[in-house]
Amino acid sequence: MVEFDLIAKDGNARAGIMKTAHGKIETPMFMAVATKGAVKTLSPEEVRETGTGALISNAFHLYLKPGLDIIEMHGGVHNFMRWNGVLFTDSGGFQVIRQGFFIKVTDEGMKYHGENGEVKIYTPEESAITQMKLGSDIAMVLDECPPHDASEKRVRKAVERTIRWAEEFKEAHDKKEQGVFAIVQGSRYEGLREKCADELVKMDFDGYGIGGLSIGESREEMMKAIEKTAPLLPEERPRYFMGLGSPEDIIETIGMGIDVFDSAFPTRNARHGTVLTMKGRYNIKKAEFKTDMGPLEEGCDCYTCRNYSRAYVRHLFKENEMLAMRLLSIHNLRFMQRFMKRIRESIIEGRFKEIMREFKGL
Amino acid sequence: MVEFDLIAKDGNARAGIMKTAHGKIETPMFMAVATKGAVKTLSPEEVRETGTGALISNAFHLYLKPGLDIIEMHGGVHNFMRWNGVLFTDSGGFQVIRQGFFIKVTDEGMKYHGENGEVKIYTPEESAITQMKLGSDIAMVLDECPPHDASEKRVRKAVERTIRWAEEFKEAHDKKEQGVFAIVQGSRYEGLREKCADELVKMDFDGYGIGGLSIGESREEMMKAIEKTAPLLPEERPRYFMGLGSPEDIIETIGMGIDVFDSAFPTRNARHGTVLTMKGRYNIKKAEFKTDMGPLEEGCDCYTCRNYSRAYVRHLFKENEMLAMRLLSIHNLRFMQRFMKRIRESIIEGRFKEIMREFKGL
Repeated sequence: MVEFDLIAKDGNARAGIMKTAHGKIETPMFMAVATKGAVKTLSPEEVRETGTGALISNAFHLYLKPGLDIIEMHGGVHNFMRWNGVLFTDSGGFQVIRQGFFIKVTDEGMKYHGENGEVKIYTPEESAITQMKLGSDIAMVLDECPPHDASEKRVRKAVERTIRWAEEFKEAHDKKEQGVFAIVQGSRYEGLREKCADELVKMDFDGYGIGGLSIGESREEMMKAIEKTAPLLPEERPRYFMGLGSPEDIIETIGMGIDVFDSAFPTRNARHGTVLTMKGRYNIKKAEFKTDMGPLEEGCDCYTCRNYSRAYVRHLFKENEMLAMRLLSIHNLRFMQRFMKRIRESIIEGRFKEIMREFKGL
Repeated sequence: MVEFDLIAKDGNARAGIMKTAHGKIETPMFMAVATKGAVKTLSPEEVRETGTGALISNAFHLYLKPGLDIIEMHGGVHNFMRWNGVLFTDSGGFQVIRQGFFIKVTDEGMKYHGENGEVKIYTPEESAITQMKLGSDIAMVLDECPPHDASEKRVRKAVERTIRWAEEFKEAHDKKEQGVFAIVQGSRYEGLREKCADELVKMDFDGYGIGGLSIGESREEMMKAIEKTAPLLPEERPRYFMGLGSPEDIIETIGMGIDVFDSAFPTRNARHGTVLTMKGRYNIKKAEFKTDMGPLEEGCDCYTCRNYSRAYVRHLFKENEMLAMRLLSIHNLRFMQRFMKRIRESIIEGRFKEIMREFKGL
């Protein structure tokens, strides 16, 4: 069950509400990444307090470790990790390919080495069964994501597989309370993206991911592909740009009609000392913050900004105290939510272009 | 200002209440370690929720990093780290000697290399001024702590310095709201410990630390030294065994009349996966916990035990998620408080020996 109501448009930018089995979320929305069943360094309560209403975990990772039987014993991932908000699961196609144990993609699925070295295969059907057992609110179909510089021939093959796998996934899926999003592949080949989108839209999914981007191609290529792909997707379904990213990329693609985002960007940057703010980013480890009594960002209402000085957070970083990473992760996730909220309001008020210009000036 | 009321005795074991500028604490008590201005991995709120009412920071460390000026800007360590409970500061004599930049102990103080290689000296007076500026509730005098296997001649020298430095510290100290504890040295030499205790007691401090133990000597030597030293200290002042430790060592020395403890034991063990329980300790990473749906410890009321399964915590450890260290740190600190409370009640009820036997049987 996924419902999506579009409540405002400003140019191509959209504001909506997405309803799932674990509550509703306002779009455009940004999900925090909980690949292995935890947002790095944070408790679910802390994540919730940042205003983050949705997380995304990796189904294939959890399928391998700790394994489906253990998560089923807990009654699903929500209970396993004690998250009562909206939860997406990524099929893991992208991650499988990028990990050491991957062998190759065949027409049937992804071949990989099991724990004892044996050859195993992860099929679209297995991916559907896995995600149903995990009990996420939204499952992503298994897709094939070729490298950004793959040849047209290779990408065509991947698109054909992605379409066929989407059919097989849908066939195997019968859990009503779980929505299913398909993923448009096609790399930088406009015709292939178009074909992929058309075929997937015919199958009528609850939403559409745009995949195979933000993986090494130029920003220009990425933006062009999004601009071309978004209009191919049905107006009344949410559009999800997988794995993006930075505030500047997010705002630009919201302007092209994207509704849903996820990225490790805020939390990974936090662990390296980078603070996100409405006026750009900076590294807290710099000497200039040594005696700075101010909060990480003036006007921010997060736990960290309400309680600690830059001088203290910098001190913790310099002393390798893990609490430093936590405090920054909290701030950066809260920043993303404040950022998304501001954009959403600007869309509703017809001032999106204004906000976009403001952020571009940074 | 430190007040100490003894409310019950059972054999040599004591139950009391210690009042400081930041509230009162029931003894026997266990402090968590916040050497650099943070309990490793935890927020102050989390520490407080475990029932931990007191922390100890290292004055010399904070004097070097971030430096006194920065902590004074914040109005003291309490504000710097947002801790509103009781705070001890260790003078840092012990740590100075064990760190790379230390040169040698002279009659005036501790010689060490500054940031630019220059030779600096940290005197008892400087230590007193530092701790007054830090604003802790209880300051520890600067002492000299020789290695556990030092010769009698070397230890005699250290005892003489420790006594003289205690005088100099007291002379320089004039902050009423901050209590001052002296530290009894003397290693395994009974006569020297006796001399040190006698001289310090004459100076009338707010409490007495027992130092120079739990640093490499045998458990038997340590226990013998404590047994001999505790009765030399005034009945009406708190006695603090610095740097201890494990539940089994703590309960035994409570039986010898010790009231106050601090150690990185619960938090350091937590970061390595060791779970403390009333029935002994175990490592959560073991395969047997893979499918264990129970809490870390049956009957524990900590955040971790209320919310997560052993299977989940084990999964986080296996995947190197920092949240695992946090969840165990919370449990282990809560365990220490439950443990101390149980001992305290047994003293009040005259059943201390019973409880001691129970824990010895583990």
